[in-house]
Amino acid sequence: MKASEKILNKINNGFHICVGLDSDPDKIPPHLRATDLPILRFNKEIIDATKHGAAAYKLNFAFYESLGVEGISILKETVNYIPDEILIIGDAKRGDIENTSTMYAKAIFDILGFDAVTLNPYMGEDSVIPFLNYKEKLSFILALTSNKSSSDFEKLRLENGKYLFQEVIQKVRIWDNSGNCGIVFGATNLEELKSNIIDFGDLMVLIPGIGAQGGSVEEVVSVFNETNNKNFLLNISRSLIYSDTSTRFSDIVTLRINDYNQKIKQIFSQNYR
Amino acid sequence: MKASEKILNKINNGFHICVGLDSDPDKIPPHLRATDLPILRFNKEIIDATKHGAAAYKLNFAFYESLGVEGISILKETVNYIPDEILIIGDAKRGDIENTSTMYAKAIFDILGFDAVTLNPYMGEDSVIPFLNYKEKLSFILALTSNKSSSDFEKLRLENGKYLFQEVIQKVRIWDNSGNCGIVFGATNLEELKSNIIDFGDLMVLIPGIGAQGGSVEEVVSVFNETNNKNFLLNISRSLIYSDTSTRFSDIVTLRINDYNQKIKQIFSQNYR
Repeated sequence: MKASEKILNKINNGFHICVGLDSDPDKIPPHLRATDLPILRFNKEIIDATKHGAAAYKLNFAFYESLGVEGISILKETVNYIPDEILIIGDAKRGDIENTSTMYAKAIFDILGFDAVTLNPYMGEDSVIPFLNYKEKLSFILALTSNKSSSDFEKLRLENGKYLFQEVIQKVRIWDNSGNCGIVFGATNLEELKSNIIDFGDLMVLIPGIGAQGGSVEEVVSVFNETNNKNFLLNISRSLIYSDTSTRFSDIVTLRINDYNQKIKQIFSQNYR
Repeated sequence: MKASEKILNKINNGFHICVGLDSDPDKIPPHLRATDLPILRFNKEIIDATKHGAAAYKLNFAFYESLGVEGISILKETVNYIPDEILIIGDAKRGDIENTSTMYAKAIFDILGFDAVTLNPYMGEDSVIPFLNYKEKLSFILALTSNKSSSDFEKLRLENGKYLFQEVIQKVRIWDNSGNCGIVFGATNLEELKSNIIDFGDLMVLIPGIGAQGGSVEEVVSVFNETNNKNFLLNISRSLIYSDTSTRFSDIVTLRINDYNQKIKQIFSQNYR
């Protein structure tokens, strides 16, 4: 199934939570650490506990690469375990010269089987084109990230009066002629979200920074609700997958994702001011 | 040995060539394709053919990730095969929120054993700090890249009159308080190299874009020579490692790196105008 179809099926049914599988051996429930392949077992339990309510899964490559060669196997086996109808995002933040990006796209889409990827725009159009050539996939390009240092470059003002991240968004809309582009926009930038959402057009928006990083579900969803825009995924990683560390952690995780979904539904059921 | 010591030992002896191991199964000599682990065998032959004259090796992660799980083993075995006194750069162009960059740094420095890494600056200071915390390693941050689309964002002019890449260079010099930072500056930007080299300070400069991408060794080295700056590595990938595809390819590669080193020596022996 096309990546954009998978995501629209979920969004049109009120599902916006992207479960971030930033699985860290030091943070998973202690009873799992003694088992064989603890990270893979943890991921499978989280997937089983959330698949009824997840719009997408996002796997951050750093967590798997830090496990060495075995980590890449775990990444691949986790992708294989996720139900086919749910979008899987490879959070890789790649971008290189065209010849090289072609190799990264092959690795992420063909070899590992992801539906979508995150990309860094710094090197410009020819660095993302090899990914965009996969018309059935989705590429989320970093616009304004959730970290504090996003002010270093992303929020620099250009000679033309725009901020760099606004220039990126404008370029992504141009690159989106096959409808397979999205942007990453951090939940910690609420004011910028309010003042820029109108310029997102039809782009799908991946929103990190909820929870551990300080962003608020209510505030972000309200902004989308007020502009009648449903094209967003709220990524929740640490504050969902580590909500409990007991042997019944997966039950707690299920309750937690249900709470998130309920909260989003309530906000969308309110009339806007 | 500290990364900066490895590199200075080579540069002070007139060696500036960084051998780019962008090893592609479709481009290596045909007789190797039938062997077991052809890419690892190719890398070992290239290393044997160049180690007497190489200042550094650079492995671009994309080429190894595109080989799947096995690719990461080949990456690691290649790193292990390179003599300890030669700098090994992991060309990964990583950069993420601090929590995640910490995992990438662990993967690249601790697990895979690289001496140096390339980083993407888009997300700002806190995205590179986990790498800079490794004081014995080197981090090359993308300033102005060799691809055509570097004009999309890197060459945008800011409100303060500078180009974005100039702002990046200025920030990298601030981040360099442990002397473990460098920049990436593409050989295809000769005019920008001439007009900005004075602002590089003591930063080590990694220069891609020679050969297949159109940059010229003579022109780039002359600019460094004229400013009495020896802090540079010229990366040569495709036009060195694929200079021959016969069974005696490694002899041709040896001749080729000797030619490059001779050419550089000649330019540096000329008095500047």
